[in-house]
Amino acid sequence: MKANEPVAELEEIPEAECLEILGQHSLGRIAIVVDGQPQIFPVNYAMSGRIIAFRTAAGSKLSYAPRSKVSFEIDKYDSGVGWSVMVQGVAVDATEAFDDVSWAARGAAPRPLAPGAKPHWVAIEARKITGRRFRVGA
Amino acid sequence: MKANEPVAELEEIPEAECLEILGQHSLGRIAIVVDGQPQIFPVNYAMSGRIIAFRTAAGSKLSYAPRSKVSFEIDKYDSGVGWSVMVQGVAVDATEAFDDVSWAARGAAPRPLAPGAKPHWVAIEARKITGRRFRVGA
Repeated sequence: MKANEPVAELEEIPEAECLEILGQHSLGRIAIVVDGQPQIFPVNYAMSGRIIAFRTAAGSKLSYAPRSKVSFEIDKYDSGVGWSVMVQGVAVDATEAFDDVSWAARGAAPRPLAPGAKPHWVAIEARKITGRRFRVGA
Repeated sequence: MKANEPVAELEEIPEAECLEILGQHSLGRIAIVVDGQPQIFPVNYAMSGRIIAFRTAAGSKLSYAPRSKVSFEIDKYDSGVGWSVMVQGVAVDATEAFDDVSWAARGAAPRPLAPGAKPHWVAIEARKITGRRFRVGA
């Protein structure tokens, strides 16, 4: 490493801490696959244990997420520290279903900031939660 | 709408403005599909026309993005205005190739903040660029 390069450090974030970080934020992004094309949509979410819940209108998220593999991500870069947390799992249409995941999702309280009625609930049951963090020093 | 609900307004962002916004930022996220599972990774990027360029080490992004459909997204929520821009396209390993896209990508100057050598260049040739913006009023 050259002397004038930033001193940097990279670390994995343990799963328990990833869950804690997820609980401290409310804006993330879901990636879904629509006819072979991954797409990314920002959503306001809330956690219920390991379940990520958000509300949506009819549209791509509701049509393609349920029963499919999806990914959810939050990240931030601030004051020399960058981090990201990614949740991989399967989405569920939790609007009316009586399974445990749907109940838990409806018990969370996501607050959509985007306008428009969002009468449907989508839950993501986390199967794999990973995170990383790095520091860029002087 | 009830009287105490926030006044909100939603609009599509025209493609030309989406490109302008993309040029004003440097941190976004790429979604790639790994064995049927979409994954989201934050990347520092730079634009060259309609091409998004970023650098990476060997790993998931380099193994799965090139020649595949990918999505790239930036978003922000600040002071009552939220927006997001999504680019859909196909990724190219631009590290050594001599095609126009690879040349253009290597002419851009993404500045990775995360530590570690990132000797590979990946380009995303935008096929579809969409954006939306909303305001939440008092």
